[in-house]
Amino acid sequence: MAAMPTYGGIDLGGTKIQAVVVDDDHEVLGSARRPTPTSGGPPGVVAELAAAMRDAARAAEVDLTLLAGVGVGSPGTIDDAGTVSGAGNLPGWEGSFAMAKTLAAELACPVRVGNDVQVATEAEFRLGAARSYASLLGVFWGTGVGGGLILAGVPWTGRGGAGEIGHMVVVLDGARCTCGRRGCMEAYAGRAAMEEHVARQVDKGRRTDLFKLMHERGRTRLTSGIWARALEHGDKLAIAVIERAVQALGAGIASAVNLLDVEGVIIGGGLGVRLGDPYAQRIAAAMQPHLFIDSRPPNVHVAELGDLGGAIGASLLVAGDGHRSARS
Amino acid sequence: MAAMPTYGGIDLGGTKIQAVVVDDDHEVLGSARRPTPTSGGPPGVVAELAAAMRDAARAAEVDLTLLAGVGVGSPGTIDDAGTVSGAGNLPGWEGSFAMAKTLAAELACPVRVGNDVQVATEAEFRLGAARSYASLLGVFWGTGVGGGLILAGVPWTGRGGAGEIGHMVVVLDGARCTCGRRGCMEAYAGRAAMEEHVARQVDKGRRTDLFKLMHERGRTRLTSGIWARALEHGDKLAIAVIERAVQALGAGIASAVNLLDVEGVIIGGGLGVRLGDPYAQRIAAAMQPHLFIDSRPPNVHVAELGDLGGAIGASLLVAGDGHRSARS
Repeated sequence: MAAMPTYGGIDLGGTKIQAVVVDDDHEVLGSARRPTPTSGGPPGVVAELAAAMRDAARAAEVDLTLLAGVGVGSPGTIDDAGTVSGAGNLPGWEGSFAMAKTLAAELACPVRVGNDVQVATEAEFRLGAARSYASLLGVFWGTGVGGGLILAGVPWTGRGGAGEIGHMVVVLDGARCTCGRRGCMEAYAGRAAMEEHVARQVDKGRRTDLFKLMHERGRTRLTSGIWARALEHGDKLAIAVIERAVQALGAGIASAVNLLDVEGVIIGGGLGVRLGDPYAQRIAAAMQPHLFIDSRPPNVHVAELGDLGGAIGASLLVAGDGHRSARS
Repeated sequence: MAAMPTYGGIDLGGTKIQAVVVDDDHEVLGSARRPTPTSGGPPGVVAELAAAMRDAARAAEVDLTLLAGVGVGSPGTIDDAGTVSGAGNLPGWEGSFAMAKTLAAELACPVRVGNDVQVATEAEFRLGAARSYASLLGVFWGTGVGGGLILAGVPWTGRGGAGEIGHMVVVLDGARCTCGRRGCMEAYAGRAAMEEHVARQVDKGRRTDLFKLMHERGRTRLTSGIWARALEHGDKLAIAVIERAVQALGAGIASAVNLLDVEGVIIGGGLGVRLGDPYAQRIAAAMQPHLFIDSRPPNVHVAELGDLGGAIGASLLVAGDGHRSARS
């Protein structure tokens, strides 16, 4: 039916899988969301990626077999063949897994895989809040804290593993991180680490409505929505833990800016998008005392493509003009 | 006399000025060193830069007026006109100063100014220990801790202020830095901060031979040579303070590597070169527990051009094939 080619994009997150079908102008024709499976390991995840893509194609009224390709943004280090390694925030996902090959067989169409944070950063750079910048740090505040870099207009991925801003050390010998190390920014600001921290505080007798809200909503984790609701309710422990996260984000992002002197910082991810501009500006304020050149801080914006940014960014891996993202 | 053109290079450090005259093959024909003046502000510094350059030309038996140009590596942020700002480690140096213009008038030859750390990093990349790498972090451990970046074979200077690795936060709300902020890597590892720390420890009754060695050598500061001597003597406070510096360097450099995933790290600067490979390897070991991808750490080398690297790097600003360094 459509003369215009269509593309699939999937964002694989620690808690949810977001799929979109887009046209050549990057307009979203349909989308679908599924929870990331907590069991079944990599094959279980790939089955849900395929199911989410089928749902999105159905929503877009596009025949799955007509998609010109599907791009996936995945946590971890991704090689050119689309093999994913070190995706520690996915449950049961150790070692390496040939994601592109497996999903391509499942969907019967070409699949390319990129790092989730890098593709989301590129989406903001090409289509979103960072269109006017040539250098950019994307900070994705969710289950973990990921970072993406655009320098002189092109993605910087180092030897394939760049952007791990969540594991910059902000407190030497500090809190234990979900990665097993100490003092990482993510140990204070990642949603998984924050949930563990809250659970320990509750064990010590601190009061909070966070887990009550979680049960009321039938969730098994403290989602971004639950955090937002608790903050709106004035939950004291939630406020304190988010403030601790904001201070860690401020120090870590300022450290990255001191090293790289980028023009712009984009705050995305589940928490970043859900909490929005007021919190992005609190992060900017928390950066300020740590900036070496404090007279011209970088601009700090919330990711403009919102929840769909990761999936739209993933579609850029296969869309016609997306080859800029293949630079390594 | 010489048919081959000659160039001047000057490294302006917090404690010393190092000048060289080089030929077209970057061979050092003569060199000279003077202490950085502690009074007289920018004009006093420029007078000593000129004097050091005249000394080096005399040592090289080259007529100063025959130099094709003089490059200067200076602390601070440098604009295209060679104006230096934010050189806080130079005594009495606040605001901005037109260094290139002033020194060019003094020496009657073309002068270009670059950031000291960036030119030293480029010297190691083009002529020294990092010749085989396309991506590189230079860490210059001296009065302060500076950083230089080469990414995909070209210097990365951001908006002109990149590379401030010394002011990455390694301990949120930690020790007071010489920059006035808290918890910077330089607050633990910079020679100026270490000297202040030792003085406070002595006030509290701790014993050390550091200041005795300083007086014996007729110095007014704890130089790299004095630190090296105290370490050789087994001075317990010196050992503890250097170990604290090594741990901070390990955390900060590992954070930078987690963000950028560079191939190589060069350890230079007065202390880095004086303490040499055993300490570079201790820094590498201190990085290891903080590396997110710990299976393939970057190679860590001591700056190969040693004490003269900064001055040789500065000469690249004016040498025939040095224009690669002008990219901003």
